[in-house]
Amino acid sequence: MGKAANAKAALFLATCAMGLGPADARTGPDRAVEAAFDAQVSSSDQLEWLKDMSSQPNHVGSLHDRANAEGTLAKFRAWGWSAEIETFDVLYPTPISTLVELVEPTRLKLGGQEPAVPGDSTSGNTAGALPPYVAFQGDGDVTAPVVYVNYGMPEDYDALERRGINVRGKIAIARYGAGWRGLKAKLAQEHGAVGCIIYSDPAGDGFAVGDVYPKGGARPPQGVQRGSVMDMMTYPGDPLTPGVGAIKGTKRLDRAQAVTILKIPVLPMSYGDAVKLLAAMDGPIAPASFRGGLPITYHLGGGQGVRVHLAVKSDWSLKTIYDVIARIEGSTYPDQWIIRGNHHDGWVFGAADPLSGNVAMLSEAKALGALLKTGWRPRRTIVYASWDAEEPMILGSTEWAETHAAELKAKAIIYINSDSNGRGLLGVEGSHEWQHFVNEVAADVIDPETKVSVADRVRAKTLADAFDATGHADEMLLKASETGADIPIGALGSGSDFSAFLDHLGLPVLNLGYGGEDEISGVYHSLYDSYDHVVKFDDPGLVYGATLSKTVGRMVLRIADADTPPQRFSDFAATVAGYLDEVRKLIDDRRAQDVKRDVLLAQGAFRLATDPQTPVGPPLVHPPTPFIELAELANAVETLKKSATAYDTAYSARGATLTPEARRRLNALLQTIDQLLLTDRGLPLRPWYKHLIYAPGLFTGYGAKTLPGVREAIEERRFKDAEIYAKLTADALLAYAARLDAAGDILAQH
Amino acid sequence: MGKAANAKAALFLATCAMGLGPADARTGPDRAVEAAFDAQVSSSDQLEWLKDMSSQPNHVGSLHDRANAEGTLAKFRAWGWSAEIETFDVLYPTPISTLVELVEPTRLKLGGQEPAVPGDSTSGNTAGALPPYVAFQGDGDVTAPVVYVNYGMPEDYDALERRGINVRGKIAIARYGAGWRGLKAKLAQEHGAVGCIIYSDPAGDGFAVGDVYPKGGARPPQGVQRGSVMDMMTYPGDPLTPGVGAIKGTKRLDRAQAVTILKIPVLPMSYGDAVKLLAAMDGPIAPASFRGGLPITYHLGGGQGVRVHLAVKSDWSLKTIYDVIARIEGSTYPDQWIIRGNHHDGWVFGAADPLSGNVAMLSEAKALGALLKTGWRPRRTIVYASWDAEEPMILGSTEWAETHAAELKAKAIIYINSDSNGRGLLGVEGSHEWQHFVNEVAADVIDPETKVSVADRVRAKTLADAFDATGHADEMLLKASETGADIPIGALGSGSDFSAFLDHLGLPVLNLGYGGEDEISGVYHSLYDSYDHVVKFDDPGLVYGATLSKTVGRMVLRIADADTPPQRFSDFAATVAGYLDEVRKLIDDRRAQDVKRDVLLAQGAFRLATDPQTPVGPPLVHPPTPFIELAELANAVETLKKSATAYDTAYSARGATLTPEARRRLNALLQTIDQLLLTDRGLPLRPWYKHLIYAPGLFTGYGAKTLPGVREAIEERRFKDAEIYAKLTADALLAYAARLDAAGDILAQH
Repeated sequence: MGKAANAKAALFLATCAMGLGPADARTGPDRAVEAAFDAQVSSSDQLEWLKDMSSQPNHVGSLHDRANAEGTLAKFRAWGWSAEIETFDVLYPTPISTLVELVEPTRLKLGGQEPAVPGDSTSGNTAGALPPYVAFQGDGDVTAPVVYVNYGMPEDYDALERRGINVRGKIAIARYGAGWRGLKAKLAQEHGAVGCIIYSDPAGDGFAVGDVYPKGGARPPQGVQRGSVMDMMTYPGDPLTPGVGAIKGTKRLDRAQAVTILKIPVLPMSYGDAVKLLAAMDGPIAPASFRGGLPITYHLGGGQGVRVHLAVKSDWSLKTIYDVIARIEGSTYPDQWIIRGNHHDGWVFGAADPLSGNVAMLSEAKALGALLKTGWRPRRTIVYASWDAEEPMILGSTEWAETHAAELKAKAIIYINSDSNGRGLLGVEGSHEWQHFVNEVAADVIDPETKVSVADRVRAKTLADAFDATGHADEMLLKASETGADIPIGALGSGSDFSAFLDHLGLPVLNLGYGGEDEISGVYHSLYDSYDHVVKFDDPGLVYGATLSKTVGRMVLRIADADTPPQRFSDFAATVAGYLDEVRKLIDDRRAQDVKRDVLLAQGAFRLATDPQTPVGPPLVHPPTPFIELAELANAVETLKKSATAYDTAYSARGATLTPEARRRLNALLQTIDQLLLTDRGLPLRPWYKHLIYAPGLFTGYGAKTLPGVREAIEERRFKDAEIYAKLTADALLAYAARLDAAGDILAQH
Repeated sequence: MGKAANAKAALFLATCAMGLGPADARTGPDRAVEAAFDAQVSSSDQLEWLKDMSSQPNHVGSLHDRANAEGTLAKFRAWGWSAEIETFDVLYPTPISTLVELVEPTRLKLGGQEPAVPGDSTSGNTAGALPPYVAFQGDGDVTAPVVYVNYGMPEDYDALERRGINVRGKIAIARYGAGWRGLKAKLAQEHGAVGCIIYSDPAGDGFAVGDVYPKGGARPPQGVQRGSVMDMMTYPGDPLTPGVGAIKGTKRLDRAQAVTILKIPVLPMSYGDAVKLLAAMDGPIAPASFRGGLPITYHLGGGQGVRVHLAVKSDWSLKTIYDVIARIEGSTYPDQWIIRGNHHDGWVFGAADPLSGNVAMLSEAKALGALLKTGWRPRRTIVYASWDAEEPMILGSTEWAETHAAELKAKAIIYINSDSNGRGLLGVEGSHEWQHFVNEVAADVIDPETKVSVADRVRAKTLADAFDATGHADEMLLKASETGADIPIGALGSGSDFSAFLDHLGLPVLNLGYGGEDEISGVYHSLYDSYDHVVKFDDPGLVYGATLSKTVGRMVLRIADADTPPQRFSDFAATVAGYLDEVRKLIDDRRAQDVKRDVLLAQGAFRLATDPQTPVGPPLVHPPTPFIELAELANAVETLKKSATAYDTAYSARGATLTPEARRRLNALLQTIDQLLLTDRGLPLRPWYKHLIYAPGLFTGYGAKTLPGVREAIEERRFKDAEIYAKLTADALLAYAARLDAAGDILAQH
């Protein structure tokens, strides 16, 4: 224990050491160790590291990205960790030239690097910085009329079609928001667009929501959101090595074979530029849902009066990426790993995204190192990872997870992720059998602004927002907040380094961070995501950086040292039951909507309703939604609920008094239980994604779809798939329930 | 019958004349007369009249306003009506000088007359036109900091208070929308503001909703909405003669005694000007609900950094106003009057508001005149009124109604009103025992765009919007649209010439017009509400002007010639029962909200929820809502429902075969039945308003409050009043039910 531990903490430790039951049974967290951990967490450390790591552009392939990896390696080693850098050679394009200009009605050059702003000390350091660009677009040189497609989501294309507008042979201009960037580009391509522009409308993160940078933290007119448009819904990671690690000697696809690379040129744009283009557009006036915050009347465009020239050329060579992997060997269960990660690559300086989370992780690593020096050792192995190449689409973590898949499936207990972190409230998503554990930790971490637990603050915020009708609390969260019950955690889709662990390997994961009072979205993926912005607008003093460290630190310590990792399976079962209810409602709603649409079409209601001067066609007619066989899945969910409750009850009663051998058998059964939720064949159209409960939505991108094989099949009218995946999911849940029954047998026999 | 009536129509007439039962029983509309009427309705007439009447500024006191009255008089006489102009001398201020300028951070002159725009042929005719001004503000000269109060409604002041901002000693700047203009000025004054500016935010009716005039019909940056800010919620009409006609010799109040005149200077503003002011403001960032469409970050202001100089001086002399009153004496029941009106004064050229409705009314008058020349005579007396001085707050109709109160209460069957009219769907509000009649008429009028009945088009639009989730149909309207049942009509508050008839005299009224596809709101009360705007954007060819004439014409003809005016009292009873349900829910919701608020306050939820860097205080604490005694009112509603259903059933069975004497007695009982809904003492705080079922809301302005004595007392926490008015309302409904029982007795005895 470090010097910071005071007498009271030492007393606490003594009390715990006297604990009940056999020597290997620990019934609660070791609060003295946690206090000692907290004492080593320092916001001023984090400020120093953040300033250094965000001082130069640090995108994949940049000098400073590699320097950050090497600096991190040195830190881990200095703190007593066993650490190394693991490299992969991945396809990562960088722009050779980007061009976007208005050709008609006047010639006007747009685009180019974001300018420096006063008071932001790194915004002038643009040597070697990426200009506005989106990775994995398809190089090209096109000149065409422009169509405004709103958010560029499927329903937007429906709305366009009903107004007689399409993007075939044209350039689609979409605003950021409502769905993931890559989906916008992919859908534009699928609808026949020859190019795509994605711009940041001020209604989303600009002047409409707050004063713009540098006066405030919101997006300034010249700010551009870079990003990746890789089709990660098919698979993330290196496009040339799906499913395997991009290590030396791996057989790689030709670039032309890589389906996750787009075929059309795409560029991101500032609203300062976009307004010049949108203001000139003609065609029908955009429907209300298409209207953003620019001081113009939004038109759908499509005519020859406004034409844009868009040209992108990239260097498609392989680049080396640098994952820093550090470990502390477990004293008792060295082959049970708790993995914790955060990426280190940014789009430019990446101060908030990802370094705000990365420096919190470094604080944890320093604190764990300090504990080591007091003689403490974790019972399980702790692996910390500072990933590279998350931004272009989770390459660093995916390639590592694919490379070490077998070992991870055998050894990993959980993967805990963070990314950007800011001032505000705790948000957690992940595997629901860990929900109660998350709540236990959140009840023990103090919110620096209000001095109540971070869990209680979430409850208070939920209740106050619901009272003021300013929030959209989901029903379960509201109920939990009213009763003081566990706060539900969200489901995970994709969009950060947890993806391969959860979606491909079937490991439990948690993803967490603080936020909601920060203004990170105003500079997201722009040149202005800087140290100055973070300390002025996102997390002054990195107070919440330290809070994140204390939160994750407790998770790591408690899992590392628990007799049996702290899962509660009835939470998972109840959550899955809720998902099934949603899917049933989806089918009912779809069926009712189909019937209603047909009645209204027969009545001519849409024709009679529309304003003939601005006609809107009737809704598109799809094959009707049939009844879907879900009885087997419903029965499986019931079985799961019973087994989960039985196991949880038995563990509560007898889990503290297991013999070491019984515990070893129990833990072995539970360690791989989540992998039973995978299907070898993968999800329809995307076999890399194997999880039957959680996935990123094919048409939401980062956003999660739960029971994805069933739900998406209904949404996309692949009704045969719905029944196939209902059966697969039922089988998986029954296997999961059987595993719990087997675990319960160990408790019963004991 | 006119020449246009063809052989088929003549046949129809013959069939009807052969009808069933005694000679005075007409069971349905006289379709031949209606066809002859329609044949006389001409859009080209209306175009010609509209062009002439809107050729010069025609506000109260202008030369052209008087000329329009005289021209209308001449037309009525030429068409065979007995007509005269009735004048009143009312207090009507006109601006001597208006000044609004930014003083800090820079001096910048704002305001002044709206400029001419190309393609709008009258926008240069500004000699004698009113500059931007609001009537019945209080003259003054103030310089003060500015606070942005959103819509300036009560909840906006609550939101400001929770953010530590108030308007005491400051100038409130409110945007148009969400509530009536005059309420914004009154609330600003009540909250201690020394001045008030009301501007048209582009999110409401400017570029955000459509291309601006003259490219499109939406409000251009320089467009200003004039209007009245008289406190008409206390009483409308001449401020110096509440409750009595402003005729010669009437005792008038001193201006200082007139409580409906504001005490602080108020001016309206364009968004082209407002943005200069709002962009400079500081203070807290406005909450999301306060954000409009300007390309700025909205701040609440209040600091000394932005100061405005506002000065208004008016000529407060009495002005003469000119109501044109025309009549056709009834052949059988000359003392039973159908009154129909539309005002003729505008704010500048007033082409849409009010002349689009006025010329439709003129077409009806011309057609009725033509019918007269064929020998047709209405059985009841028809009175047509072209009102003056509606704009400053319903002076022309109010003074006339007050002057002739006794005669109107004895003779009027109904008052039918229109005002602006445009392309689109029929909208009707009024007294609910006329709801079925309105539906019968709407089923017989053909929509010019779709060739179905205007009723069916409303149903189709309701269903299509509900399917597309673009509309907010109320449940009853949606249900009616699904089943083909009667479309519910809305309740009336105030805001046009029906007010004195309904609210003060207790006469049945209907108010109707077409719209929803027009762009009248874009030029509402501005210089650009012109003939050119109407024919380009609101009702090209005045096709819907003719449709309005045909709709109201049917109403007038059918009521004039019916044996017994076509009311259905069970609709009224069902509607009142629905209002009572709403009031009960209001009480329940208030009680639940009060309890929840106190629990959250005790928990400190609001304190814990708020971002300490932008703190929002807890909700204001009010005395808790108690249980309110509504049993007597509920019993009265049940009695009303029974009596109404019994009467309607009896009339359906036996109404066609009454003896003339029985019918005379029946009609006499029904003619004044609505007056039983008045209370002599008037509503709390505003005795001029005497109706217990319908009133404009004290805090909504034009918007209706139903069961106002009870509902508003609960909303405003005058709980004693709620019980007093529940009793008064119950008594009124029982008297109404008893009257129906007496009418039913006549049918039974017959």
